[in-house]
Amino acid sequence: MGKVICVGLGPGNPDLMSVKADRLVRSAAHVAYFRKAGWDGQARKIVNGMLAERAIEYPMEYPVTTEIPVTDPEYNRVMAAFYDDWADRLAALAETETVLVLCEGDPFFYGSFMHLYTRLRARSAVEVVPGITGMSGCWTATGEPITWGDDVLTVVTATMEEGELTRRIRDTDALVVMKIGRNLEKLKRALTAAGRMETAWLVERGTMPDQRVHRLSEAPAKVPYFSIAVVHGQGRRP
Amino acid sequence: MGKVICVGLGPGNPDLMSVKADRLVRSAAHVAYFRKAGWDGQARKIVNGMLAERAIEYPMEYPVTTEIPVTDPEYNRVMAAFYDDWADRLAALAETETVLVLCEGDPFFYGSFMHLYTRLRARSAVEVVPGITGMSGCWTATGEPITWGDDVLTVVTATMEEGELTRRIRDTDALVVMKIGRNLEKLKRALTAAGRMETAWLVERGTMPDQRVHRLSEAPAKVPYFSIAVVHGQGRRP
Ligand SMILES: C[S@@+](CC[C@H](N)C(=O)[O-])C[C@H]1O[C@@H](n2cnc3c(N)ncnc32)[C@H](O)[C@@H]1O
Ligand SMILES: C[S@@+](CC[C@H](N)C(=O)[O-])C[C@H]1O[C@@H](n2cnc3c(N)ncnc32)[C@H](O)[C@@H]1O
Repeated sequence: MGKVICVGLGPGNPDLMSVKADRLVRSAAHVAYFRKAGWDGQARKIVNGMLAERAIEYPMEYPVTTEIPVTDPEYNRVMAAFYDDWADRLAALAETETVLVLCEGDPFFYGSFMHLYTRLRARSAVEVVPGITGMSGCWTATGEPITWGDDVLTVVTATMEEGELTRRIRDTDALVVMKIGRNLEKLKRALTAAGRMETAWLVERGTMPDQRVHRLSEAPAKVPYFSIAVVHGQGRRP
Repeated sequence: MGKVICVGLGPGNPDLMSVKADRLVRSAAHVAYFRKAGWDGQARKIVNGMLAERAIEYPMEYPVTTEIPVTDPEYNRVMAAFYDDWADRLAALAETETVLVLCEGDPFFYGSFMHLYTRLRARSAVEVVPGITGMSGCWTATGEPITWGDDVLTVVTATMEEGELTRRIRDTDALVVMKIGRNLEKLKRALTAAGRMETAWLVERGTMPDQRVHRLSEAPAKVPYFSIAVVHGQGRRP
């Protein structure tokens, strides 16, 4: 009897992988990870130079990323078929082998593995290993604590509708914005409308070799997929 | 020239410490950590058996914990004097030595070290190493992903006023509640009023040897300081 282990690799710097993740990665015989077709995939990049020589790799290539809007039923159909297919393959493999699935950050926090997890859990033994989230890596990179005392932290995705995004930004002490990509202009308008543009930060590729930290007002017009915006809480501090 | 390094140790299981934290802990000559007078201190417990034999320990004992309400100006005065004093001591030590400060979870996420950090940063070189948060350890322990698609995650402390707590619980997809302690009954009322009691989980000492996971409705009447409540998001899932 084998199993599937999904391991959170943390925000990017391999030194921030857990001791357990490090051990699992170095000893794995079967290693699966998501990637965009034609790209390396961030999770795979983090473990560069760490895989055993005999490790067999299973790149799981997304059939679409941003070509079809997520609101289109076609997106759902194509993605569901993709996850069904890989769940079948990993379940078959896990009958006899241990398969390691690599995931950036923490797998249960907006991670793609969750879609395999729901399909696999009834059929295979599945274990999930938490990791340092991208947001922890990013707020640490700003050099300012994120939450103090009784601060409320709200985590949103920039894909949200602008009015709702503005309301959420207004209604929190500390803020983390994920999945910025094409939504940077909308996010800037929402932060400005909520009166928080001046205190917002943008972190590109937090903890990775090419990390960049800016005031959001000074951020470039185009930011990479791995970008997080942060507004720090200002709560109680004796 | 020495420095102060605050290292996040993760949620409790030493295997979930980062590779960097593990290395820093094992090689440290000066190790400081917070604890309640007369107690071991959670951060110190996590590194049990890992410290070098010659390591010098600096337990920083809180002068008060729950004896004075945090809203009392006296609480502020006593705690400020405590942080001032330890900032002085660590800054003096860091003139020549590297001092490691241990912190549970991620230091910049509701961590006590932040109060030393603001006092030290102008005087000493200070580095902060992120860690896996307690909440990541806890939601992973429930076996259910916390956020899907465009879910909003709200993190609150149970110390919040009941009406406001209820409003926040109603107004989010996924929820994490920190600092439960004496506020468990209030939290239960707020969850019930918001219609989310049935889907709430309680995790005591997530990832520690005595971890316990319950439906919140089946949780004991008294829970330890290291407890987190979780309501999972139900967002988009192809
Ligand atoms: C599909 S989510 C995966 C989140 C991941 N499971 C985690 O725990 O951080 C992808 C989003 O995470 C954010 N992200 C993750 N790691 C990051 C990093 N190191 N720097 C900047 N953004 C990051 C970006 O906003 C990106 O759009
Ligand atoms: C002062 S905060 C420190 C948070 C820490 N810096 C982190 O990143 O998780 C203390 C609160 O964290 C929560 N906590 C931290 N680790 C936990 C764990 N392993 N299990 C349950 N609760 C935990 C509890 O709610 C506790 O009251």
